[in-house]
This record gives sequence, C-alpha cells and structure tokens, in this order.
Amino acid sequence: MALHPDRLFPIEVDARVIARRLFNTVESLPIISPHGHTDPRWYANDDAFADPASLFVKPDHYIFRMLYSQGVKLEHLGVPRQDGRPVEADGRKIWRLFAKYFHLFRGTPSRLWFEHAMETVFGIEDRLDETNADAIYDRIASRLAEPSMRPRALYKQFNIEVISTTDAATDELSEHDAILSSGWDGRVVPAYRPDAVVDASRADFLANVEDFVALAGTRLDYQGYLEAHRVRRAYFKQRGATSTDHGHPNARTADLPSSQASALFERVLKGVSPDDADLFRAQMLTEMARMSVDDGLVMQIHPGSYRNHNPSLFRAFGTDKGADIPRSTSYVEELKPLLDALGNDPRLTLILFTLDETSYSRELAPLAGHYPALRLGPAWWFHDSPEGMRRFRELTTETAGFYNTVGFNDDTRAYLSIPARHDMARRVDCAFLARLVADHRLDEDEAHEIAHDLAYRLAKRAYKL
Amino acid sequence: MALHPDRLFPIEVDARVIARRLFNTVESLPIISPHGHTDPRWYANDDAFADPASLFVKPDHYIFRMLYSQGVKLEHLGVPRQDGRPVEADGRKIWRLFAKYFHLFRGTPSRLWFEHAMETVFGIEDRLDETNADAIYDRIASRLAEPSMRPRALYKQFNIEVISTTDAATDELSEHDAILSSGWDGRVVPAYRPDAVVDASRADFLANVEDFVALAGTRLDYQGYLEAHRVRRAYFKQRGATSTDHGHPNARTADLPSSQASALFERVLKGVSPDDADLFRAQMLTEMARMSVDDGLVMQIHPGSYRNHNPSLFRAFGTDKGADIPRSTSYVEELKPLLDALGNDPRLTLILFTLDETSYSRELAPLAGHYPALRLGPAWWFHDSPEGMRRFRELTTETAGFYNTVGFNDDTRAYLSIPARHDMARRVDCAFLARLVADHRLDEDEAHEIAHDLAYRLAKRAYKL
Amino acid sequence: MALHPDRLFPIEVDARVIARRLFNTVESLPIISPHGHTDPRWYANDDAFADPASLFVKPDHYIFRMLYSQGVKLEHLGVPRQDGRPVEADGRKIWRLFAKYFHLFRGTPSRLWFEHAMETVFGIEDRLDETNADAIYDRIASRLAEPSMRPRALYKQFNIEVISTTDAATDELSEHDAILSSGWDGRVVPAYRPDAVVDASRADFLANVEDFVALAGTRLDYQGYLEAHRVRRAYFKQRGATSTDHGHPNARTADLPSSQASALFERVLKGVSPDDADLFRAQMLTEMARMSVDDGLVMQIHPGSYRNHNPSLFRAFGTDKGADIPRSTSYVEELKPLLDALGNDPRLTLILFTLDETSYSRELAPLAGHYPALRLGPAWWFHDSPEGMRRFRELTTETAGFYNTVGFNDDTRAYLSIPARHDMARRVDCAFLARLVADHRLDEDEAHEIAHDLAYRLAKRAYKL
Repeated sequence: MALHPDRLFPIEVDARVIARRLFNTVESLPIISPHGHTDPRWYANDDAFADPASLFVKPDHYIFRMLYSQGVKLEHLGVPRQDGRPVEADGRKIWRLFAKYFHLFRGTPSRLWFEHAMETVFGIEDRLDETNADAIYDRIASRLAEPSMRPRALYKQFNIEVISTTDAATDELSEHDAILSSGWDGRVVPAYRPDAVVDASRADFLANVEDFVALAGTRLDYQGYLEAHRVRRAYFKQRGATSTDHGHPNARTADLPSSQASALFERVLKGVSPDDADLFRAQMLTEMARMSVDDGLVMQIHPGSYRNHNPSLFRAFGTDKGADIPRSTSYVEELKPLLDALGNDPRLTLILFTLDETSYSRELAPLAGHYPALRLGPAWWFHDSPEGMRRFRELTTETAGFYNTVGFNDDTRAYLSIPARHDMARRVDCAFLARLVADHRLDEDEAHEIAHDLAYRLAKRAYKL
Repeated sequence: MALHPDRLFPIEVDARVIARRLFNTVESLPIISPHGHTDPRWYANDDAFADPASLFVKPDHYIFRMLYSQGVKLEHLGVPRQDGRPVEADGRKIWRLFAKYFHLFRGTPSRLWFEHAMETVFGIEDRLDETNADAIYDRIASRLAEPSMRPRALYKQFNIEVISTTDAATDELSEHDAILSSGWDGRVVPAYRPDAVVDASRADFLANVEDFVALAGTRLDYQGYLEAHRVRRAYFKQRGATSTDHGHPNARTADLPSSQASALFERVLKGVSPDDADLFRAQMLTEMARMSVDDGLVMQIHPGSYRNHNPSLFRAFGTDKGADIPRSTSYVEELKPLLDALGNDPRLTLILFTLDETSYSRELAPLAGHYPALRLGPAWWFHDSPEGMRRFRELTTETAGFYNTVGFNDDTRAYLSIPARHDMARRVDCAFLARLVADHRLDEDEAHEIAHDLAYRLAKRAYKL
Repeated sequence: MALHPDRLFPIEVDARVIARRLFNTVESLPIISPHGHTDPRWYANDDAFADPASLFVKPDHYIFRMLYSQGVKLEHLGVPRQDGRPVEADGRKIWRLFAKYFHLFRGTPSRLWFEHAMETVFGIEDRLDETNADAIYDRIASRLAEPSMRPRALYKQFNIEVISTTDAATDELSEHDAILSSGWDGRVVPAYRPDAVVDASRADFLANVEDFVALAGTRLDYQGYLEAHRVRRAYFKQRGATSTDHGHPNARTADLPSSQASALFERVLKGVSPDDADLFRAQMLTEMARMSVDDGLVMQIHPGSYRNHNPSLFRAFGTDKGADIPRSTSYVEELKPLLDALGNDPRLTLILFTLDETSYSRELAPLAGHYPALRLGPAWWFHDSPEGMRRFRELTTETAGFYNTVGFNDDTRAYLSIPARHDMARRVDCAFLARLVADHRLDEDEAHEIAHDLAYRLAKRAYKL
C-alpha cells in the first residue's frame, strides 16, 4: 500500500484537518535520536549494508518473534545459533519466508515501519507477498550497492541531527573516536550503559568488574569500583555522551550507608544470592544518580523486562531473540530511596520508562508531575506503536502535562526504521493534539508549539543535546 | 428500540461506511461456537423451552446480579434456594420485576443481547418496561410452544455449524451419544473440564477422584490418576471433543519431578493445605498440556476468578449466582514451568483467557507474540462487551497481531444470546478494522480477509473444528 | 481562549449534535456537591477573598505541584513554611510566576477549570501569559472587593443546592452552627472524617483519641472509643451530615472478634507497629459500616494514596503539597471481611473510590454490580479530568451500569473551580452518552434521563441529600 499522507491522523473530519496543519510544520524537523541501539561501526566504517534479509529480518526481533510465534524456526530465518551449527544463509530464501508470513504483521507497527522504509528509501509501494517477494528482493539488493545507501549518506537523507548509541561501560568507544577524527560532520554520541558491571546475577559479573576496574585503573573494592564508574563516565562524556542508561528487572532503588554498601559489594563479588543482586542493582541506581548530579549526565531507567524467558531458545540463540517479556512494575516505593536523596535536586534529570502501562496514570504521571528531577520517557518497546503512544498521552498528560515528558526515543537497532518511527511518533502526537484542539481543550497556536516541542525541542533539552 | 443496521459501528462517517462493507461479508457466516455452557439435553431431547422468565431471567447471572445489586431478592426472581424453601414460581411476576428494573441494563451488553433476541427470535421491537411487560410476556410465551422454537430448530435458525458444551471429566456424555445416534445433523461436541478432579480444595475432591478412577478403571495412585485422565480424554475425543478447559483461581503452573508430583497427589487426597491444592492445580496444568501434545486436544486456561465471594449468598443459592469477582492475574512467572516444558512445541495449542485487562498488553500479547504454543482467547466474561472487545484488540494487536488470537467464544448458558453475541463480536471487530483502514494502517482488502478470519476461520482452525 | 459552547463534546459530528441536546437539559441543574473540602468559615463569615494568588495559586496543590515539578520553589509561590521562615508575600509576584509557567497546564484539567472561572466569574477571556499577567491580576483583584464576590453570593451564583464540607471527628462544627443560626438559606453540611482518631500510625494518634473520648464524654477503652464515634456521628448528623469519609492507605477491612479488637485497641494506644496500625484501620472500617447501618450515614472509602511521599518537602511545608502518590490498590480480598458482615444489607451505602484505574473493570464494577451495599464513587483526584472520567464510564458501565454509580463529586478546596468541575463532568458524561446513542446502544430519550441522573439525581439519592 502506498503511504497515505493522512495515515495515523484522526478519522474525525475536523480533527484530521487540524492534524494535517500541525504535522505540516513538524514533518521536516531534524531527527533527535537520544536513545537507540544502532551500531557505531556503521558510521565509522560507512560500509554498504548486505542483502535485504540481513537488513530487515535477521537483526529485528520484532520481525522474527512474530514469525516464530506461528511456527517458523529461527534457523530458517538465518538467526545464528550459539553452537555455530548452520542456519539458512540464502538471503532470498529468508526473504521469501518473510513474504509468505507478511500478513502476520497486519495491525502492527512493524508493518508500518517496514512499508515506510520500502517506499521512502527504496521507492517500493507494493505490498509484500509471495508473488512479488523475488522482485522486491532484487530491487532492494540492487539499491544497497549504491553510495547513497551507505550509513553516512542515509544519516543525511534521514535528516538526523544527532544520534546516540548505547555502549557497555567497558567499551573503548574506538568507533566513536574514529567517527570524531574522520572529519565527518554527523553527530554520533555514546551512552553509558553499565548493566554488565552492575548486575551481579550475571555469570560473567566478576570478570566484567575485574576488567572494568583494570580499564579504569582503580582498585577492586567498593570505593575503587565507584571511582571506576566516575572514570568511565568521564571517558564517555569526553566522547560526547550526555546520558546513562540502566536496564533493570525492576525499578527498585536503595540508599545504604556506605559501610553496608561496601559489604554488599564484597558479597556480590563472591557467589551471589538473588536478593543481594537485586539490592546491589538498587543501590547502584542511587549511586549513578549521585554521579549524574556531579557530572551532568542524564539518567535513564528502563525497568520491568523478564529477559530470556524461554530457556531453550536462549541456549540455542542467546539474548535479544524476542523472548523478553514485561512484568508488573511499580515505582512508588521502589524509587523512594533515590528520590528521598535526590528527587528535589534540579541538577538531576532522571527519565523513567515502563513496559507496564498501568503505571502511567497511577504512578509515573503523579511522580513526574511533582518531583523536579523526574521526567517521563516516551512509550517504550511493545508500546512504541500508534495505540501505545496514544495511551501514553491520554494517561499521562492530564497529570504530568507535556513538559514533564521528553519527546521521542526510537530505541532501535533497525537503521531504516528510524525515520519511520519518528514519522509515526510525530503523526500520533499531532493526532492527539488535534483532538484536544477539536474539542476545545487547547488553542491551535498552542498545539503548534507543543507539536514542535514533542518532535524536536523536548528531546534536545532533556538529553542536553 | 429496533435494532439499527449500523449499531456498534464507528460513529465517524468514513469508518462507518467501511465497517458496513466489512460486516456485510461476514454477517451471515455460520457460527462456530468452540466454548460455551449450553445444556446438551436441549439438543438431545429437543423439548420446548418453558416460560419467558425461565428463558431470560432465572438462568442468567448477568441479569440477576444486576437486579440483586439494586436490592432485588433472588427469591423474587425465582432463583432456587439450596434449602428448597419456596421462591417465586410465577414467571409473569418475575418478568414484571425484570421489566421494572430494565433501565439498570442501560449501557450493558445484556441489554443489547436481550433486545437482539427479542427482535430476531420473537419479532418484538418494543423496549421492555412496566407498561408493556405483560404483553411482551404473552407474546414470548405463545411463541415458545411453536416447533420453530425448539432447540434443534433454533440451532438451524441461528446458523450454527458446530457448538461445544463444557462437561465434567466424569460425565458419561450420554446426551452427546443420544445426539450422535439420533441422526440429527447438528454438531454438538463436548469439552473436557476436569476441575472437579483437579481442584483439591473442594470438599468433594476425594469422592470425585474416587469416582473418576473407578469410571476409568484405573488405580487410585498418581499414575492411575493420570491414566484416568488419558482414558477420559480419549472417551471425550471419541464423542467429538477437540478441547479441554481449566478454570483455575490463578495461572500458576508447575512441572515437578514425578516422585514429588506423586507424593503431592497422595497428600492432597488426605486433608489438603491451600498451598498444596494450589501446587497440585499448577502441576496438573502441565500434565494436561503434555497429554494435549499426545492426543491433540486444544487446551484452554480460564484463570483469575474469586469464586463465590459472597458466603451468605453462596450458602443460600450455591454457585454461579453473580458473586464471582475477578482478581489481579499474572502470567509471566506463573506459566513459565509449563512453557519451559512445552511452549516451543507446535503440537500444543494453549489458549489463554483473562479477567485482568492489564495483562493484555503487558504479558499476554508479548507471550503469545513469541511462544508457538500460545494463542489468546477473546475478551472474556465481564469483558465480552463492546468496550471490552475494543480494548482487547487495541491492547493486543500491535504486539501479537490478529493471528495469535482465536476468534470469538460466546461462553454462555443463554441459548438465545448466542447469535446476539456473535453479531456483537463481528460488529465490534469490523468497527476496529474499519478504523485501521480509515486511518490507513491497513488496506481494505486485507481488512475483509481479517474480518472473515475473526468471524469464522480462526476459531475453526485454533479449535480444530 | 474563550469558552467554546461545544468544549469536551465528541468531535464526531453526529455525536456532537446529540451531546449538545443532552447537555442543554442538564447544564442549568443545581449543583449537588456531596463531597469536598471547602472551608466552612467562608459560608459562616462571608468575608471577601484576598488577592488572586491567594485564591488561585497558594491553596491549590494541583497548581503548585506542576510548577514545583519544573523547578519553581514553593517559597516563591507563597506556600507557608512549617518553620515560619518568610516566603513570597507579594501576590502580584506570585501571579507573574504562575503566568510565566502557565503553558505547563496545557492539556490538564487545571487549565480548563481556571479558564472557566476566569470567564464565568470575572469575564476574562484572555489566555494568561507574562504579557497580560498584571492586567488580569488587577481585574481580578478589583472584582474581589465587590459584594457579589463574597462566598454566599457565589454560592447562589453557582446554583449550589447543597454542599458538604469534610470535618475532623473532633471538630466542634461551630461554623456549621453559625451558618445554621444565621438565617442564610444556603445548605452547608459537614461530613464525618475520623482519620485522625483511626490512623494509629500518626504521631498524634494518642493525643487525638484522648481529646476525642473527652469530647464525647466516654471512657478510654475500646467500648468507650466506639461509643465516642457514635456520639460524634450523632453530633454531626444533628448538623446535617449525611456521610462519613475514610482516607486510608489501602482498602483493607477486618472483622475481628470483639476481644481481639479490644486488645488491638489497647496495643495501638501504646507504641504501634505498622501491622497493628493497618489492622486497626481495617477493623475500624467494618465498625464504621456497622454504625452506618444503625444511623444511616453513607460511608465513603478513599483509599490508595501514599501520603507525603517527599520527606524533605513534608518537613518544610507539611501535608497536602502535591506529594501524595497513588499506589496499586486492590479490593477483592481487602473488602471481604466488611462485605461478609454487611455487604448484603440494603441499609448500608458504601461508596468506593480509587486512584488505581486498573480496579475499575477488574474489581470495582464487578463488586458494585453484585453487592447491594456498594456504589462506585466518580473518577477521583488525578482522574477528575476529561480522559479520567471517560475511562471511568468506559470501564465500569458495561458491568455495573449507571445506577451503581453516584454522580459527581467535586472534591475540591478551590471554591471557584466548583462550577467548572461540575460543568466538565456534565459535559464528559453527555459526551459518553451521546456516543452510545450515536452507535445505537441507547435511545436518546434514555440518554436524557441518564444525563439528568448523573448530573443531579444520583448524587442526591446516594448521599441522602
């Protein structure tokens, strides 16, 4: 289906016309992408992308989780096995399988992102199916060889102003150095994600921490460990980082006396109990917030995913294979230790995300509508979708307003979906605003200002970009 | 009020026109009713229904719970008491009481189902009230004597292709045998519902299990008990069953080593603790799933109801009197033991239901959008309603798509409401699809295909009917 | 922005026209305000209100919590400190600060309430901003001196038929006596709110209870304490009270044997554990319900707020400063002890509120749609808003109907917002009803009757006013 200019706008006539006017003024704003998972090597090396299946199917857990749910084996989609046993290597065969099952994506955001990329990047308006799979594969494949399809050219085509990657605390950031020294004028910044040296329940935790303190040149005790964070945060900041990111199973925080925190660290370095690991993660969120007050890095918490829920799939294929499942997540008591310490400090910006929509109106909007340090991240992951974004606004705006939110995050590994995702977010926000104008809750001049804020200014301001 | 041809369609003009086109192609499709509680004796004996009150009021807990909530005594509605003390026997008096309080049903699905039956079965377009109660009673009563009002004739009039009853594991299914041997061409299949021999918290559990193994001809130990399930499942399957059904207080599953499961069984046969009863139910869900892999019966879990919440009402009137109240229900950790064992097995179809709508987007859609064995049942019980069905689609489609859902269940004891309920579901699904077409998320040809799938094909396929 | 006559109506054309017709018949109905927090001294003394900041900013925690969340200090808004240190006293400066940050309220109900008061009370149609702040301040200030701006004149202008205050159990109600003896024909009734003598976790609990039994002339033991409640309830009832109100952290109830309850009371008078405090609150809800059966006072439970979540703000500024945060709240098991004792008693009216919207469809509507004693209070606090009220109706009506709800509560300390809030509630309810008529779920004559019920009759009936 060709992209319709009114897609995702209100279906009520008056509101649709207002939405058009709003969107018209924000459609072409540059993309601020303050949180995502694109590969810094793309921008450093500027290599051509491989075949269509490697671009659209193999790396996208939204795509292959849906195919898997209907009985397609991951091996047949070319997803590499942990044991190195062979998987499908023929991109065309993978693509045909994707085309055969393309109807599964009806009503999903993946479908809309895919078709946006097809049309805006490749000029393809046909709906993928088994009959045209080969022809479309060939068209894409032939285009991928062109210089205009390289990562840096696409960065310009996508009108990206700045994009953040997400990087382990022990990452040397050599690609970021390479980008900086290359003279290219794109802006790619890292984000400090220390989960691997914070989550003591991981099998590799001790080894990670040993590498971490060695890299930072500090001692393997709690003070040395904290110092290592400071060292590495400064290292990231020097390379443009403005934020940290923390992916935890829950939103628990703690603020232990120093001696207890130190003893806890010693315990988790040895064999760890689940309770201690949870408490250590909780303690580290407050330590990270304290460091953010000092160094100004914006802090993000992404809680509530049960990672690797499917153990046999995990053994065969590893992490990030579509088997992460959200859980009930609460914030009111969980965040209190951190907020008691730093919630009133205007130097801290703590951006909260959730996979549990029940927290929007009950907890997150009331918290963000009070604490100076708190802001709400946009609808996340499974909720990065038209209905999910609409619910986010409907459930948070009346209590937290627009200005305790931070614009849009694309949060993706799929490079070609970035403009599609920002386009979707801008459309859905304009649709929401248009309805408020249409039923006279808001004046249209205000809606224009808010649309611009949501599409561009709020992300730039909240993330200090 | 006369049934309006556009009822439940979008009120936006463009979408309404699309919804009409979609509904037009599915309105007359045969009814697949894969899960419900109609009485097999109706089809076996084909007796006339009694008076209007016995048809519409006395057996319908949706109706009398609402009247009870406003102070009407169940005795006055003819609901039989457990102690046999007299209750109102005059159908006309009961009917007048119903008519007097009919305004309570404004905005409820019961109202819409009732009026659909009134008009399509009895040709009555007047809105029930105290002034016309007697006249309407007489019209219905006179029609009930006609041959066209017998269950088998209505089955044909309703355009039912197949309907499933729900039957205890110890049921002889003699009515099903009678139907099969009668030469009638209606298709009425049983479903295996073993709750009474699985829920050890019931006072009659030991007696039920003793009857159960006796009936199956197996021993009263754990292996014999499991074998009895296999025997009875085969018995059901021979009579057309394609599914099992499990109504549990929560969605907990377990997969104990055989020796522990066996010891647990021995314990619950004697005085049982609530913890053991819960664990035994959990264990049995996994055992049932294993048997489903072997015999192909589709498995349904209906969790999360606090049954018989009102003890004085329960003592006076027994079960199913409108006092079952939903509770917060979670699935992510609860289902894990079963899913670890069988979630990736394509031979298993496990259909999940919920009374806790918060689980739709947070847990159920992410789970069903990943595990090959999982499918989502439709909006259930209190959510079998226009708003409930709309929320179900809005909250599940973007993550699980349409094809991890299974179409509609009417789940009713009220025979005349069956076409009304399917009509409502088809309208609400077409309305949902029409909105996706109107804002260009879906092409209309796809919406037609999905509408047909949701109304007919998905239920048939998922339930193997 | 000037108030638009169609504000908050459906944006679909057909439904908007229906909503206009519905609203037209209820717009001018008198206001029944059965639950709120206006100051009885206003009606007793009929003094002029002070400056605009004292009227609109300083007392309104909706306003200053939002400003605080964006870094404005409460001192700068004139909010008094607990330690008596100076805060901004210049109303004009406070007003300018409010004007500067007025854009924060875009999309919030506070914005709509404020502009309704501006236009209907002061004739001001301009949108507040920094450029017109002084001029608007002057216009309001000059009007406040006029006799028509006194509380009693506004009571008449607002078309209030009856309004309830909320008063501590130990309150002498001298203002209510003064109002009654003044010959003024306004009706201002108290409500019995015994939290300070029921919540044993409070530092002042023992002192409160001592004052309480002294005031009632009863002994300081459990029977004397219960008798003191009876004495004080009768005292309130003599002054027009028809209701009690209970603000608890959760909805837990208990029904202990008398000896255990008595021992619990003795324990909580001495140093109290959190568990005992929780149990005592739970027990007292059931005792209150028992007394309601005797004296006919309608009972309200407002559960689920974590009060004073921000300890440093609490130390500096005290209670009710926007730092109360909702928590997950469940009802099914929590209310059972009370309901087991009294849920079937038609002499009891127990009105339930929630800050946890997940309970609407899962628990509250099913409970209220069954128990004769239960009714649902309207969307409360953070949900007293257009989207919040819409969700309340969408999530409760299909299971509980309209007639297990009790109309609207304004629940405010902000006198000028009262007509604005009732206007909003009537509009949103008419919008909801108009949609049901437009998609043929309801006849329009019924919608007219329901609109009248929701705007006026249900509150009057439920609260016995």
